[in-house]
Amino acid sequence: MKPLGKRIWAIPDGYIPSKSNGPAPQMTSHESACILNVGDQPANVEITIYFSDKAPVGPYKITVPAERTRHIRFNDLKDPQPIPFDTEYASLLVSDIPVIVQHTRLDSRQAENALLSTIAYPASE
Amino acid sequence: MKPLGKRIWAIPDGYIPSKSNGPAPQMTSHESACILNVGDQPANVEITIYFSDKAPVGPYKITVPAERTRHIRFNDLKDPQPIPFDTEYASLLVSDIPVIVQHTRLDSRQAENALLSTIAYPASE
Amino acid sequence: MKPLGKRIWAIPDGYIPSKSNGPAPQMTSHESACILNVGDQPANVEITIYFSDKAPVGPYKITVPAERTRHIRFNDLKDPQPIPFDTEYASLLVSDIPVIVQHTRLDSRQAENALLSTIAYPASE
Amino acid sequence: MKPLGKRIWAIPDGYIPSKSNGPAPQMTSHESACILNVGDQPANVEITIYFSDKAPVGPYKITVPAERTRHIRFNDLKDPQPIPFDTEYASLLVSDIPVIVQHTRLDSRQAENALLSTIAYPASE
Repeated sequence: MKPLGKRIWAIPDGYIPSKSNGPAPQMTSHESACILNVGDQPANVEITIYFSDKAPVGPYKITVPAERTRHIRFNDLKDPQPIPFDTEYASLLVSDIPVIVQHTRLDSRQAENALLSTIAYPASE
Repeated sequence: MKPLGKRIWAIPDGYIPSKSNGPAPQMTSHESACILNVGDQPANVEITIYFSDKAPVGPYKITVPAERTRHIRFNDLKDPQPIPFDTEYASLLVSDIPVIVQHTRLDSRQAENALLSTIAYPASE
Repeated sequence: MKPLGKRIWAIPDGYIPSKSNGPAPQMTSHESACILNVGDQPANVEITIYFSDKAPVGPYKITVPAERTRHIRFNDLKDPQPIPFDTEYASLLVSDIPVIVQHTRLDSRQAENALLSTIAYPASE
Repeated sequence: MKPLGKRIWAIPDGYIPSKSNGPAPQMTSHESACILNVGDQPANVEITIYFSDKAPVGPYKITVPAERTRHIRFNDLKDPQPIPFDTEYASLLVSDIPVIVQHTRLDSRQAENALLSTIAYPASE
């Protein structure tokens, strides 16, 4: 199947709460970029993290195999450096082939978890 | 009325929690693809499920009658096989006529439910 | 200012919970279509409600004055008939001038409220 | 890098709850416009606030430096005047260069917080 989606995606509202309630890892506060690659070639994705008060950091490199999805937790990105908790950031994802990206946050700072989600913004034509 | 929307829709963030709190079926943790067909012909929709570590499964076949909406619970899809709980997946919906798709999850793993929703990504021109 | 947005908008995931916790009307379970008209003429909007098992109902007629927003609660729509609780529906909004529509639900069936929101789907060119 | 996104963005569903539970400022009920500027020039953004029953107020002026994100809390906008609590509003953001905008609300009126988020509506071509 031909790849579907766009090559560039943006998620302006990044924020990983440092506190959590409930069993790890499912209920740990986290933020995900869920990437779907329906094409028959792997997608090589580079993520850049933007901050409010310092230069961008990246790229973080991810591969999504052909006909697979990967739900990347921003909490798990370590190279070139971990993303700080309780800090406002944003992310830009650039893939070498079209993919589709959805942004989701689970916030369990309080006893009961809250969720948000949106399809990310497709920033390329 | 002429059909509105697109023929192909993607939902990268699929996840059905295995735990629930509250009376079934309303408060059972579930994930839905809400499909609206405003046209005067039925829409035949095929859903393919993508995983992180195995080949896609499908098609799951759904019909949305003319001028009707169907709120499909992924929990209820059985043929060709049920979607596993607590597993990251994604879905692609391909319809023979334009429809409109919204993705919603109700997560009642903890005592109080959380909700997320987004219009799915329209992947066809 | 020229109107911005589109004339036709769709919200596939309609559902008004019949139960609520907390002080009315703020914490009453409800579902809203938030409409923004930035133009200098009033927008006349007709809402049609679609169901899974019966013919569509409408139009419900709403006016959004020039340079104003209206947050319509579906709970409050009475003419031609109220929208039933605990029932899956969808809605189509058709305006005579471009507007912008966002869909939001507050669900307070359990002790703590949950929220979902998404920009509606712009179904016209 | 070239700027990405659009110059005009709309958020129809504005509402800042007056009540909060939990430690300030993180858990204070608030509403944010998260703006990402990936370009190499600063973005000058003017925000206009629309109401249901009175004339629009603005512009509120914000600058997002080159290659930075700013998560603007509507609660913090003071000039020309604060946005009233518990009041339905909407917002239009006009930037001099393309940016990307995501809307998020944290509602902590009840003991456990709820979240909603969506990419705002890109209202310019």
